[in-house]
Amino acid sequence: MNPEQISWKNLDTLPSFAALTALKGKVCLPETMSGEGAVERVKAYSVPMAAGLAYNYAAKQVNDDILAALKNLAEEAQLALKYQALLSGSVINTGEKRLVLHQLTRGQLAGPVVADGVDKREFYVAQQKKVAAFANKVHSGEITNAAGETFTTVVQIGIGGSDLGPRAMYLALENWAKTNKTFFMDARFISNVDPDDAASVLKSIDVSRSLFVLVSKSGTTLETLTNEAFVKNALTQAGLDPAKHMVAVTSETSPLASSKDYLAAFFMDDYIGGRYSSTSCVGGAVLSLAFGPDVFARFLNGAAEEDKLALESDPLRNPDMLDALIGVYERNVQGYPATAVLPYSQALSRFPAHLQQLDMESNGKSVNRFGEKVDYVTGPVIFGEPGTNGQHSFYQLLHQGTDIVPLQFVGFRNNQANTDVVIKGTTSQQKLCANVAAQIMAFACGKADENPNKAFAGGRPSSIIVGDTLTPEALGALLAHFENKVMFQGFLWNLNSFDQEGVQLGKVLATRVLAHDTDGALRAYSDLLNI
Amino acid sequence: MNPEQISWKNLDTLPSFAALTALKGKVCLPETMSGEGAVERVKAYSVPMAAGLAYNYAAKQVNDDILAALKNLAEEAQLALKYQALLSGSVINTGEKRLVLHQLTRGQLAGPVVADGVDKREFYVAQQKKVAAFANKVHSGEITNAAGETFTTVVQIGIGGSDLGPRAMYLALENWAKTNKTFFMDARFISNVDPDDAASVLKSIDVSRSLFVLVSKSGTTLETLTNEAFVKNALTQAGLDPAKHMVAVTSETSPLASSKDYLAAFFMDDYIGGRYSSTSCVGGAVLSLAFGPDVFARFLNGAAEEDKLALESDPLRNPDMLDALIGVYERNVQGYPATAVLPYSQALSRFPAHLQQLDMESNGKSVNRFGEKVDYVTGPVIFGEPGTNGQHSFYQLLHQGTDIVPLQFVGFRNNQANTDVVIKGTTSQQKLCANVAAQIMAFACGKADENPNKAFAGGRPSSIIVGDTLTPEALGALLAHFENKVMFQGFLWNLNSFDQEGVQLGKVLATRVLAHDTDGALRAYSDLLNI
Repeated sequence: MNPEQISWKNLDTLPSFAALTALKGKVCLPETMSGEGAVERVKAYSVPMAAGLAYNYAAKQVNDDILAALKNLAEEAQLALKYQALLSGSVINTGEKRLVLHQLTRGQLAGPVVADGVDKREFYVAQQKKVAAFANKVHSGEITNAAGETFTTVVQIGIGGSDLGPRAMYLALENWAKTNKTFFMDARFISNVDPDDAASVLKSIDVSRSLFVLVSKSGTTLETLTNEAFVKNALTQAGLDPAKHMVAVTSETSPLASSKDYLAAFFMDDYIGGRYSSTSCVGGAVLSLAFGPDVFARFLNGAAEEDKLALESDPLRNPDMLDALIGVYERNVQGYPATAVLPYSQALSRFPAHLQQLDMESNGKSVNRFGEKVDYVTGPVIFGEPGTNGQHSFYQLLHQGTDIVPLQFVGFRNNQANTDVVIKGTTSQQKLCANVAAQIMAFACGKADENPNKAFAGGRPSSIIVGDTLTPEALGALLAHFENKVMFQGFLWNLNSFDQEGVQLGKVLATRVLAHDTDGALRAYSDLLNI
Repeated sequence: MNPEQISWKNLDTLPSFAALTALKGKVCLPETMSGEGAVERVKAYSVPMAAGLAYNYAAKQVNDDILAALKNLAEEAQLALKYQALLSGSVINTGEKRLVLHQLTRGQLAGPVVADGVDKREFYVAQQKKVAAFANKVHSGEITNAAGETFTTVVQIGIGGSDLGPRAMYLALENWAKTNKTFFMDARFISNVDPDDAASVLKSIDVSRSLFVLVSKSGTTLETLTNEAFVKNALTQAGLDPAKHMVAVTSETSPLASSKDYLAAFFMDDYIGGRYSSTSCVGGAVLSLAFGPDVFARFLNGAAEEDKLALESDPLRNPDMLDALIGVYERNVQGYPATAVLPYSQALSRFPAHLQQLDMESNGKSVNRFGEKVDYVTGPVIFGEPGTNGQHSFYQLLHQGTDIVPLQFVGFRNNQANTDVVIKGTTSQQKLCANVAAQIMAFACGKADENPNKAFAGGRPSSIIVGDTLTPEALGALLAHFENKVMFQGFLWNLNSFDQEGVQLGKVLATRVLAHDTDGALRAYSDLLNI
């Protein structure tokens, strides 16, 4: 891979984008998806993903012409080449002058990557082994509390990427693990600086048998250090030694790394952003403790397999790239401002919240990689809740509102727990699946009605990722799919998707408020809030 | 109140709206909110709400001219008059030919409303008393399980409005109640037809000491009846009599109303839509069981007080109406497609999800009250998560993304639990409040920087609702504020905010899938999902 082959250009300077723009509004979904002809489309417009999943885009507003144009765009924007450069250890995060290595936590696709004199794949694997060994000792009772009792609960203290991803992954596999007898410890999460968050979690657990995982890359995150103090207070008040109840996940250079306040420290580094850290020790510690290291390894395998698929340069054989391209068509050609993520799986209840961070923090930007303002819209608003719940909530607007919101469904043929019930001849799982199939068609085709209040225009595009069961491998593939989608979209928009300068100003001003170093309206708001 | 005074007109036919449109982009927030002059603005641009709350709109893109134009719009759109008509029992829900009476569950502001030969205020109060008497008996141990043990957990089975509102309210007061010793029973919620939802909840409780509240107005909601069967199965398998563990909340005409399958039945009616039912028995049963009837009564009082404030015809003295008007200015004049709800209170973690239903299901519509297509955009996408969590997630896009998203902050001076910790001289609560103050100013004013990647354009409007503590009264006021805001916006857009025809088509198609009565693409999707 020769980095000189790569040129970073704005989307609106690419001839292939101009060609794509000319294909605005070419697909009328109510027509395209009606009749027996559409059966073939549902079968054909599908790309295999890892772990037996498939990305089906039959109900998207694309046709063979648009797909050909998207393929040209992928080529001209050098999507595959840029991904290769990232995997090879190029400084893709130009703002912070950093490599981007989250994929390396789950596999090595482009030869060794050496940074700071270290083979980074070896480093990540060594940390995984350290976590696994520690988790095994906790599970076997070799590591216990002072009274010699086993730990029953693991509590992650972290915010943002140290919270949303690991929490969403834990919830996604909790019932699977309970059903499949790989469940070791309950997990809880403390994130918000609001003291009621920590208080509420501490009230719900037996602190004497809880192990706390403090996650902060820098070792300086305000919320996390504050919550650490809150938890240490509670442990001390309960007559316990905090140092026997805490581990740290941090960078090797952080003040936490060699502190005696922790039973153990597991390391991450600057090459993995918070929102991409679920497959690093940030997710690894809590997930290995909750479900065992083998389950975490299976999760990584699913992600690795998906990363490999993403190497394919033809988007029609690359589900992550294709999803990214269709998203850009919807955002920059069709002009849709938001995207809804709708998993038909209660286990994925917080997956949309994780994607909200992943996507909006990566691509919610107005300047390109060179700091120049771009003349096109970039990352959309991302939101969502699991189905069928959402159907009884905000789907009204999705069906009949004045704006069109593209939809990203996820569905599984089987549920995770082995319990179900037959009512009126069908199981709950069948009802769940019937609903997602029905919604795709309702959104695509709509329905005429004499009463305009009961009419549905249709023409509302959706895709669905379908799998058999939400296993650790499927979850890994799903996570990597969206990480890679966001990466490819960042390439298309010519953004640096791996920094987050937009979160800094608020931190600076909050520090000034706490120091009473304010004037004008900021002081007035501080007064209003009695600070 | 003479109904003939009222005329229902589209927003874009009102001269006052044309006048407002001419005021697009008149306020430059980075200027308006800078300097000592802005201090006065923060104090002046504030309206008292009920329960000691205040709605502060200093950081909105409004000035005295725009406020005057909004006042004209309020008058021409007859907002106060239409609210009066609603309170008096007019058929405001024209699509379903129904009265709209949720405010009547918490007070009577316009004389008796009689429907179906019944004084509806008396009816709602009688149901509240029935719930209160039942809850008191459960708490006192007069009603127990078959073994004579008290019930410790209440599980709500319901979806949509029977889930999101009650769940958000429960979470909002859980810690407050624990701190203030009014906590009686843990509450859990089963909503999704995904069998893993019920399985997961049932695994987490002692079913022998659990009381289930089945909520379905019609008694026919697919998800709810399926989950009822799931729960009954589990109770029977545990050797328990389901009829001794369940109560129903339903309409008097539903098949559930007189069934012997329930310990008791509490009634609602067709005049309260699901998303407006938190203050009816739908919220009343679970909240009275969890916190005691007195706490539920205090919650109603807060809502009643806010409803009364909403009667004021001058929007500058009516926080609900003003919030609605500013929202329409942002949506239809400034052209912003989404709104974020950002409570700086972990207790309000699911309040945004409730508002998402409330707002998007009420006003996500394209035809007016007469079934005519409107030529303007209506309800925006609503999303949000509690702060400071969101700061470490999607705020990047809010600060530096290409689209402007108006923000609705909520903050309290004190936390609910009596525990806090001092780190670096400030409490967690102070840090929480400092962050919301800082965010408002960062969004409004931004910050210049030589590095465009670190520059913030500002000009991103927000409001904040501020209070002392999230008490039952404050929660009631907050809920009623948003219900009334949505109602006033529906009046402005000339929509029927009280039906939800957009959810019907999906249900019809799902039933066809389950009956294998499909062809074309719907069958192909059904095959894909193995139904």
